[in-house]
Amino acid sequence: MMFGQIWSEPVAEIACYYISGSPPCWTVMLALEAKGLAYEARRLDNGKGEQKGEAFLAVNPRGTVPVLVFDGLVVRETNAILAFLDALEPDPPLFGTALPHTAAIWQTVEETEARLRTPIGSVTRPIFRGRTAEMRDQIDTAIVQVRDVLDELEAGLAGASYLVGETLSAADLAVYPAIMQLMRGATRDGAEVLDLKVAPLAEHYPGIAAWAGRVEALPGYDQAYPPHWRKGP
Amino acid sequence: MMFGQIWSEPVAEIACYYISGSPPCWTVMLALEAKGLAYEARRLDNGKGEQKGEAFLAVNPRGTVPVLVFDGLVVRETNAILAFLDALEPDPPLFGTALPHTAAIWQTVEETEARLRTPIGSVTRPIFRGRTAEMRDQIDTAIVQVRDVLDELEAGLAGASYLVGETLSAADLAVYPAIMQLMRGATRDGAEVLDLKVAPLAEHYPGIAAWAGRVEALPGYDQAYPPHWRKGP
Repeated sequence: MMFGQIWSEPVAEIACYYISGSPPCWTVMLALEAKGLAYEARRLDNGKGEQKGEAFLAVNPRGTVPVLVFDGLVVRETNAILAFLDALEPDPPLFGTALPHTAAIWQTVEETEARLRTPIGSVTRPIFRGRTAEMRDQIDTAIVQVRDVLDELEAGLAGASYLVGETLSAADLAVYPAIMQLMRGATRDGAEVLDLKVAPLAEHYPGIAAWAGRVEALPGYDQAYPPHWRKGP
Repeated sequence: MMFGQIWSEPVAEIACYYISGSPPCWTVMLALEAKGLAYEARRLDNGKGEQKGEAFLAVNPRGTVPVLVFDGLVVRETNAILAFLDALEPDPPLFGTALPHTAAIWQTVEETEARLRTPIGSVTRPIFRGRTAEMRDQIDTAIVQVRDVLDELEAGLAGASYLVGETLSAADLAVYPAIMQLMRGATRDGAEVLDLKVAPLAEHYPGIAAWAGRVEALPGYDQAYPPHWRKGP
């Protein structure tokens, strides 16, 4: 196989397939913005089942998002895409330059699914679907797991500007969208009876709120924001 | 935080906590061997619950394995450890040197848990526990998923010596132990009635069998082999 040629292709030839509001998709788009890479965002309509439709399955037979396409090369799996983007455009580095930072960043990135996305989904899915009464036990169990991790993050942020050290890393990009999904659920009508103790973020977790503000100041933040979350004029 | 100093420490100060026969632990130990790094293998006795015991929880409060300790730095999560080892000792590179290889290696590494380890566990756990009759439906569903992936790997290995390209990578180290666990289950007494169609490997998947032979020729392979799988004299 001849791969040398690929390096001479313009790096603007990137497409990112995503579902609006999906935390891992948002993570990848934030990484693209952080790297300053031009890309075409190709939104799939989850409601119409486009993720499992013929057109997308031709790109990714597994029907998972996010998917990155670079010059015909298809990359799936959020963390694989993050590693790939860091190899494609090393500046700024998203996985650190000092060994202990690299370790901590990768550990956070790898743990985000099990420790945050999954339990946060267990809290927010019933809220979005109006099924909080039936799913109350699941929500109560999951929010304890989530708050344990938020306590850890809050403690870490007492001594650092970002989750790992003083610069933005893949750890921030992995965690931020998950927490925003939690906030979106926790501030929905009907969520107040759940007593989740996470919103407003600035009241319950001031360090995390300040950190979120730093992520939101990232150039390109608005471009990566989930379209269907944007308020109308 | 001052991290510069860590680079001058001897890299032999590595410990790896593991459970014998755990595929992700085996993956990490194969990576340590592939890198030629000296390390102390610290075996936890799963039967005695040492993974959730006080001594290990002091190292990793989550009680998960594998865990790598390097000069006081604790790294958990298999894929985070692989990325860390590649940063610690870049030679030989386990995540490729050409961009498309890097993408394919990371994608394989990230997909191994969902596509192989989990369904293989669904097949082998009932076999090891002597519960194949009750769990037959689960086994029949999971083995179809596993064979789909094995078919993919077999096809890929028709044109390459390793899972991604012509050199050993993290993809091989992630996948190999999972397949060996499958073989161990599939050749147990009582497994023949399940008609798994995977063992002997050389008969069902000759390309995968030849590839496994290449992994087994790796210097250090014997050192990483699960102790309780070793046959007595």
